[in-house]
Amino acid sequence: MTAELTGSPRERILNTATELFYAGGLRAVGIDLIIARAQVAKASFYRHFPAKDDLIVAFLEKQDQDWSSWLGLRVEALAPDPKDRPLAIFDAVAERCESGDFRGCPFINAVVEVADPSHPAHLAAARHRASNTNQLAAILDGAGWEGAKLAPAFALLVDGALVTALQEPGREPADRARSLAELLLTSESVGS
Amino acid sequence: MTAELTGSPRERILNTATELFYAGGLRAVGIDLIIARAQVAKASFYRHFPAKDDLIVAFLEKQDQDWSSWLGLRVEALAPDPKDRPLAIFDAVAERCESGDFRGCPFINAVVEVADPSHPAHLAAARHRASNTNQLAAILDGAGWEGAKLAPAFALLVDGALVTALQEPGREPADRARSLAELLLTSESVGS
Repeated sequence: MTAELTGSPRERILNTATELFYAGGLRAVGIDLIIARAQVAKASFYRHFPAKDDLIVAFLEKQDQDWSSWLGLRVEALAPDPKDRPLAIFDAVAERCESGDFRGCPFINAVVEVADPSHPAHLAAARHRASNTNQLAAILDGAGWEGAKLAPAFALLVDGALVTALQEPGREPADRARSLAELLLTSESVGS
Repeated sequence: MTAELTGSPRERILNTATELFYAGGLRAVGIDLIIARAQVAKASFYRHFPAKDDLIVAFLEKQDQDWSSWLGLRVEALAPDPKDRPLAIFDAVAERCESGDFRGCPFINAVVEVADPSHPAHLAAARHRASNTNQLAAILDGAGWEGAKLAPAFALLVDGALVTALQEPGREPADRARSLAELLLTSESVGS
C-alpha cells in the first residue's frame, strides 16, 4: 500500500508516516525516509513537526480517530441490530487481522517500542485506551449490557486477538476471542 | 536490577543483554552498551555473537527456557493440587505483572519490534509460542481437561493480560483473564 500523495504537505507527511510507522515500526523508520516519500521539503517537515516525537504523537492521534470511526462503522454494518453489536466487534477485528497490511495494534506496538512510560507516545496510547474502552462500553450499553463493567474484559480480548494474530495470521485469534466474549455475555445473562 | 557479572564471558554477555533488551528494547539497546556493561573485550563478544541478531536469538532462547521453568515451578507452588493448576497460570502471570521490572512479554515485544516475519527473532518467537502452548496444554491435561483444545484460548488470555498490564500496571489484567479462563472451564464442564 502506498500513501496517497495528495493534500497539504502536513497531510502528505502524516499519511506517509502512518503507513511507514505502522509497517516498519517507530524506531526503524527515520525522518529522512518520510520526507522523501511524502515529497515535501525538509524545512516544511520541521515547520509542521519540530521533532520526531511530534510526528509520532500526531500519527497515534490519527490512528485513534481512524480506529474509532472504522470500528463504529464496521460494527454497525456487520450488525444492524444493536443487540448483535458486542460480538460483531470481534468480527470487525477478524477482518482487520485478515487484511494484507496487518501489523497488530499501533498502540501496543508504540508502548512496546518506546520503553519510557513518560514518553508522549505512552500518553497518546493511554488516551486511546480510555476512548476505546468507552467506545466498547457504549456498544455494550446499546445492546442492554452493563458496558462499564464488561468493557475492560472486551478490551483485553481484543488486544489478545490483535497480538496473537501477529504470530498467527488470519481471523482465527479473533474468532477465539469472540467465543470467550460470548461466554462472558452468557454468564452475565445467567447471573442477572 | 543489575545483571550478575559472574560466569564465563558468554554468560555475562547473555545476562547483560537479557536485562537490557527486556528493559529497553532490541533496537534501542546497542552492542557497545552490552559490551561495556558485561565487562568483556570486543573481540570476545564477536567471537560468541558474530552479529547482533545472534545475540537476539540467544536472548529469546534463554527467555523461553526461563519462562517455561518459572511457569512450571510457580504454578506447582501456587497450586499443589494439579486440578487447580490451570487457573493458577493466571495467578503466576499476575505475580509477573506486579514485579517491578515488568515490561510485557519479550516475545510479543520482539515480534512488534522486528517487523520482518522472516527475521530469526520471529522464528525464535514462533518456537516459544509452540512450546508455551504445549506447556499450557500439559497443565490442562494434568487437571483432566482437553489441553490441546483449550490451550490456544488460554494462550490468548495470557497474552491479552501481558499486553494489557503494559498499560495498566499490576495484577488486575491477569485477574480479568483468569475470570474469563474460569468461564471457559465452567462451560466445558457443563458441555461435557
